[in-house]
Amino acid sequence: MNKNSSNIMALAPNTSNKRETVCIFGTGDFGRALGHKMIQSGYPVVFGSRSTQTSSLIPKGAEVLSHAEAAQKAAVIITAIQRQHYNFLTPLTEILHGKVLVDVSNNLKINEHPESNAEYLAQLVPGAKVVKAFNTVSAWALQSGTLDASRQVFVCGDDMEAKQMVMNIVRALGLTPLDQGSLLAAQEIENYPLQLFPMWKFPILLSFGLAAFFFFYCLIRNVIYPYVYENKDFSFFIAISIPNRICPILALILLALVYLPGVLAAIIQLYRGTKYHRFPDWLDKWMLCRKQLGLVALAFASLHVLYTLVIPIRYFVRWRMSNQIISQVLNNKTGPLDTTNAWLSDSYVALGILGFFLFVLLGITSLPSVSNNVNWREFRFVQSKLGYLTLILCTAHTLVYGGKRFLSPSSYRWYLPNAYMLSLIIPCMVLVVKFVLIFPCLDKPLTRIRQGWERNPQYSE
Amino acid sequence: MNKNSSNIMALAPNTSNKRETVCIFGTGDFGRALGHKMIQSGYPVVFGSRSTQTSSLIPKGAEVLSHAEAAQKAAVIITAIQRQHYNFLTPLTEILHGKVLVDVSNNLKINEHPESNAEYLAQLVPGAKVVKAFNTVSAWALQSGTLDASRQVFVCGDDMEAKQMVMNIVRALGLTPLDQGSLLAAQEIENYPLQLFPMWKFPILLSFGLAAFFFFYCLIRNVIYPYVYENKDFSFFIAISIPNRICPILALILLALVYLPGVLAAIIQLYRGTKYHRFPDWLDKWMLCRKQLGLVALAFASLHVLYTLVIPIRYFVRWRMSNQIISQVLNNKTGPLDTTNAWLSDSYVALGILGFFLFVLLGITSLPSVSNNVNWREFRFVQSKLGYLTLILCTAHTLVYGGKRFLSPSSYRWYLPNAYMLSLIIPCMVLVVKFVLIFPCLDKPLTRIRQGWERNPQYSE
Amino acid sequence: MNKNSSNIMALAPNTSNKRETVCIFGTGDFGRALGHKMIQSGYPVVFGSRSTQTSSLIPKGAEVLSHAEAAQKAAVIITAIQRQHYNFLTPLTEILHGKVLVDVSNNLKINEHPESNAEYLAQLVPGAKVVKAFNTVSAWALQSGTLDASRQVFVCGDDMEAKQMVMNIVRALGLTPLDQGSLLAAQEIENYPLQLFPMWKFPILLSFGLAAFFFFYCLIRNVIYPYVYENKDFSFFIAISIPNRICPILALILLALVYLPGVLAAIIQLYRGTKYHRFPDWLDKWMLCRKQLGLVALAFASLHVLYTLVIPIRYFVRWRMSNQIISQVLNNKTGPLDTTNAWLSDSYVALGILGFFLFVLLGITSLPSVSNNVNWREFRFVQSKLGYLTLILCTAHTLVYGGKRFLSPSSYRWYLPNAYMLSLIIPCMVLVVKFVLIFPCLDKPLTRIRQGWERNPQYSE
Repeated sequence: MNKNSSNIMALAPNTSNKRETVCIFGTGDFGRALGHKMIQSGYPVVFGSRSTQTSSLIPKGAEVLSHAEAAQKAAVIITAIQRQHYNFLTPLTEILHGKVLVDVSNNLKINEHPESNAEYLAQLVPGAKVVKAFNTVSAWALQSGTLDASRQVFVCGDDMEAKQMVMNIVRALGLTPLDQGSLLAAQEIENYPLQLFPMWKFPILLSFGLAAFFFFYCLIRNVIYPYVYENKDFSFFIAISIPNRICPILALILLALVYLPGVLAAIIQLYRGTKYHRFPDWLDKWMLCRKQLGLVALAFASLHVLYTLVIPIRYFVRWRMSNQIISQVLNNKTGPLDTTNAWLSDSYVALGILGFFLFVLLGITSLPSVSNNVNWREFRFVQSKLGYLTLILCTAHTLVYGGKRFLSPSSYRWYLPNAYMLSLIIPCMVLVVKFVLIFPCLDKPLTRIRQGWERNPQYSE
Repeated sequence: MNKNSSNIMALAPNTSNKRETVCIFGTGDFGRALGHKMIQSGYPVVFGSRSTQTSSLIPKGAEVLSHAEAAQKAAVIITAIQRQHYNFLTPLTEILHGKVLVDVSNNLKINEHPESNAEYLAQLVPGAKVVKAFNTVSAWALQSGTLDASRQVFVCGDDMEAKQMVMNIVRALGLTPLDQGSLLAAQEIENYPLQLFPMWKFPILLSFGLAAFFFFYCLIRNVIYPYVYENKDFSFFIAISIPNRICPILALILLALVYLPGVLAAIIQLYRGTKYHRFPDWLDKWMLCRKQLGLVALAFASLHVLYTLVIPIRYFVRWRMSNQIISQVLNNKTGPLDTTNAWLSDSYVALGILGFFLFVLLGITSLPSVSNNVNWREFRFVQSKLGYLTLILCTAHTLVYGGKRFLSPSSYRWYLPNAYMLSLIIPCMVLVVKFVLIFPCLDKPLTRIRQGWERNPQYSE
Repeated sequence: MNKNSSNIMALAPNTSNKRETVCIFGTGDFGRALGHKMIQSGYPVVFGSRSTQTSSLIPKGAEVLSHAEAAQKAAVIITAIQRQHYNFLTPLTEILHGKVLVDVSNNLKINEHPESNAEYLAQLVPGAKVVKAFNTVSAWALQSGTLDASRQVFVCGDDMEAKQMVMNIVRALGLTPLDQGSLLAAQEIENYPLQLFPMWKFPILLSFGLAAFFFFYCLIRNVIYPYVYENKDFSFFIAISIPNRICPILALILLALVYLPGVLAAIIQLYRGTKYHRFPDWLDKWMLCRKQLGLVALAFASLHVLYTLVIPIRYFVRWRMSNQIISQVLNNKTGPLDTTNAWLSDSYVALGILGFFLFVLLGITSLPSVSNNVNWREFRFVQSKLGYLTLILCTAHTLVYGGKRFLSPSSYRWYLPNAYMLSLIIPCMVLVVKFVLIFPCLDKPLTRIRQGWERNPQYSE
């Protein structure tokens, strides 16, 4: 074996024939689960604990020693204990000197403490190389092996070497380490598992606000107005008819809001004559949540499709239809086919179908695994070209739906225009401005600016 | 720190300027495909074969030697031959001593042999370091480069260093190695490519059983009963009407069965006063296939939606409707709008739409690439909060659908209640128990138990 | 080379306490973005530039030196400049000797130059180890951190060690390196970001061609014929009725075309008696785009479903229905329920629903993240068994839809058969041949051929 051992040496990533012992401080749920997984992956594990009594819960094959003894046996020590008990580590400072100390703790609230737990640990044990890791993994997931949520482990730390040792352990456990830089990032990493869809907050709040506004708007026009003037009880419109007005309106407005910031950015760049000036903060934030805005719009569009397709099943619609037919019979009238009406009805439905179809395509390409398999040109083609086509189709769908109703005075109850008219404002604005921006006299300078050209080079700070 | 710097030096993945020669025993399809891929990735490849004649099928650039000669040229030997021919390796034991022997073989049946092929190989060639790998990759996929199925390569072996060498080769070929531990795991790895959706077996069998039961139940109530008593031939209900009764029932029951084990587990934990006691085996298995149960439920829900939306297109429905209108005309009756009916009809449809919408959301978040991008808090929020909301909406949908029919004697044909009533039993049970569990007097101790508190600490074995 | 081998040593991922300095030539957008990201990841960065004046745009912490000075400070030099300026590197040949030179450039057109930019660079600076990398990453993505598209970085180069150094940097930046082999691959890597769905071209062109043909075919039969003979204006059929004929036809034909090449390949293999003969080129290409063909077919099937479900909402359909009822009333006729019609109508709808349901399942399993989680047996089961079941259901759906219309002379307007009849030709052919191939007398030799058996072993070239 000796003769080719040098070859093997070079090939093998982790030279050692055996993995290095890892020490875990704390025999709580998470410590035990991590220890269990590590033993499975071939690491000798020593637990450091107050009571060195081996309990039946400690994974088989692990040793339980006092903190000091355990720490001496390993180069990497994982502190699976809560922040409030960290001060017991102070007497161990000497033993921990030069060791890699891995902080796996989480907090209960975002930004609970002024400094992150990992930074606090680094202050308490100045000689140790503190690395933050594993806080995003759940004990249950480690034990059951079903990592349904994420396999990503965020790692940060000031010592490059220590960080690499921890990242190797992460990889050996079948997880994916993601280097987040220095220990300053620990605060963010500790906040991460406490977040609840932060990027979705703005789109969802916005859509709730808009939905509430349009709900009352439609309630007034479609329920209260007929009740007041015609004494008809259409309160059941709340279940389907009104949601089916709100959903398409919201879908259209939110879809337009996906493309509005791009148009605004183009105007700002054209005005400033450079791209090297930061956009205002609100615009930056807006641009970063465009994907979420678009997906919320897609959700409303899907609801609109479902609400529309059930129309013929509804009792009210069947009642109205049979009543119409009966009154036609009684009046002995059979209307001829109105081709214009047939055209209007069919084309607004067809536009809606095509728009929704493209919208779903956009949604599918925004799935992480799909977008990961396309190059930038393809991604931009789908999200920009197909996206605008979707916006055009959906706007046309709404315009044709309006059809002849636009000017009919009966659609202005209490001087309130039909709700769909309000929904057309932003999409039409976006499309008009985008159309103007396509003209060569504006498109050419814009392209040059985006390639780095500056009108007044001294403009950059 | 100096003392382990040499280790760290060697840690660097591919220090060597050239890749190491790899030897492949066997020039069959898989051996050749693997050899071809390795040469592409920069490995010198030697084939070991009975006849050392180079065939046109051998990838260009590879040498073909006798087994003994080929083995001497490389530190890693891949045995791309079938288990029944392994005994030709016995005379080579000396040459193979200390070498890494990679078993890539598969069986035709699950647990075909008492020991795995890799363990058998290790017995035959005691001095070699046997590693199991590559058995999940297909020759066709390697050659065509389109790895549509998995890029994952399960690796196991007793020698850590040998395993690492193989994992490096796997990575170099653009595949993802997954360390599965010692050679004992080989049996499982060899069974893996023979499996056919093992996690789906229980949910699919269960749903077939339930579907068969409800099919005959509905057949009796809706086809045989009218045939016997009214001599009407409704046999065509088998095509759409009956499936459209079975699908929502199955969707609701299966969805409730997703949440039942969680509720049972909570009761067991409350009763035992500890979480450190294993659940019964059936409960463990049940909990592990909840995702599959939910997705089967979603499939049935989707079918229900499609079956429902085509209702107005069906000949039977059109015929019934025009007959109703005609009889109304002939009797000179035009019924006024029944607001209660309108409310009932619209609200059960609206509840169904919202329930289905949330259900699809749950399905989308269970896509691997989506769930991989959310943290645990978000995953639990979606799967638990939104999941219960879905269950509530779908149960309400069914209850409101029942509406006034509940007590009408005509719905008890042959003393059989309507099928939808049976489907409500489990969901209502789950929701009631869950509602009880939310009360602080039960929720508080449960939370404490789940955080590790024990009522009788001596209870743990 | 010896003098900087120690540097290279130190670059190796884990060794160094600090990361190695990286030099970037060029301070354009991409160079700055890359530098920024590298500084974030812990690399000291030196820019090489004509003017060594530090601009406000240069990332904080980076030095700006002359090209020669900057190159001397680092073992890895990234040339973030355009190909046409490469010749300024000639005077630096001596300094760049033995250094790793990373070419990140892209072209504007596919195969713009006879040799790739990276190969051109290697000719200009013969002593340097040229590696191609980073060309698929966008500057914007690097800066904003939102890598919505791909995290994959294709790497190629002739020097294994240099390539590894670059791949380590790629990994450190949180991206995924993919080794593409020697520098010959650079041409393909440079073409990659310029591609626009190359695999989709054939399926999309084919479906456009077929769609155009069937559009005019249906236009003649359904719009022009009634206009000529009955003077009726059905031009509004263009919006929904005709697309709803084209979509199912295209879906069925394209789905059959997914399975046709497999059937052809089986026939060729049976005829030749060996699998070791390459298929004709067109068959190979066809087989590689089967997934895309299937997804386009699914898109048309989805459109067909949407177009069908809106039928009862259309003005024309409502008008026709009320007219029918009214004429029934006036003639005092109430038709009895025609059970055969009810069966035909319900069963063709049911077959369509089941076929579409399976089709969507196939689509979902072809999502990269889903197919990555199944083994080969499962993938083949879904794509082949379920795929053929889908084809059978969809063909049956069309056949039953035809129903009694097949032989009625009225459906041969101007001797043109109904369009759906044309769509049945290919699917029926595929199903019949597949059915024949299942017979043991053909299936057995085919299976043996696919396992490597040859009828005339000398046949192989």
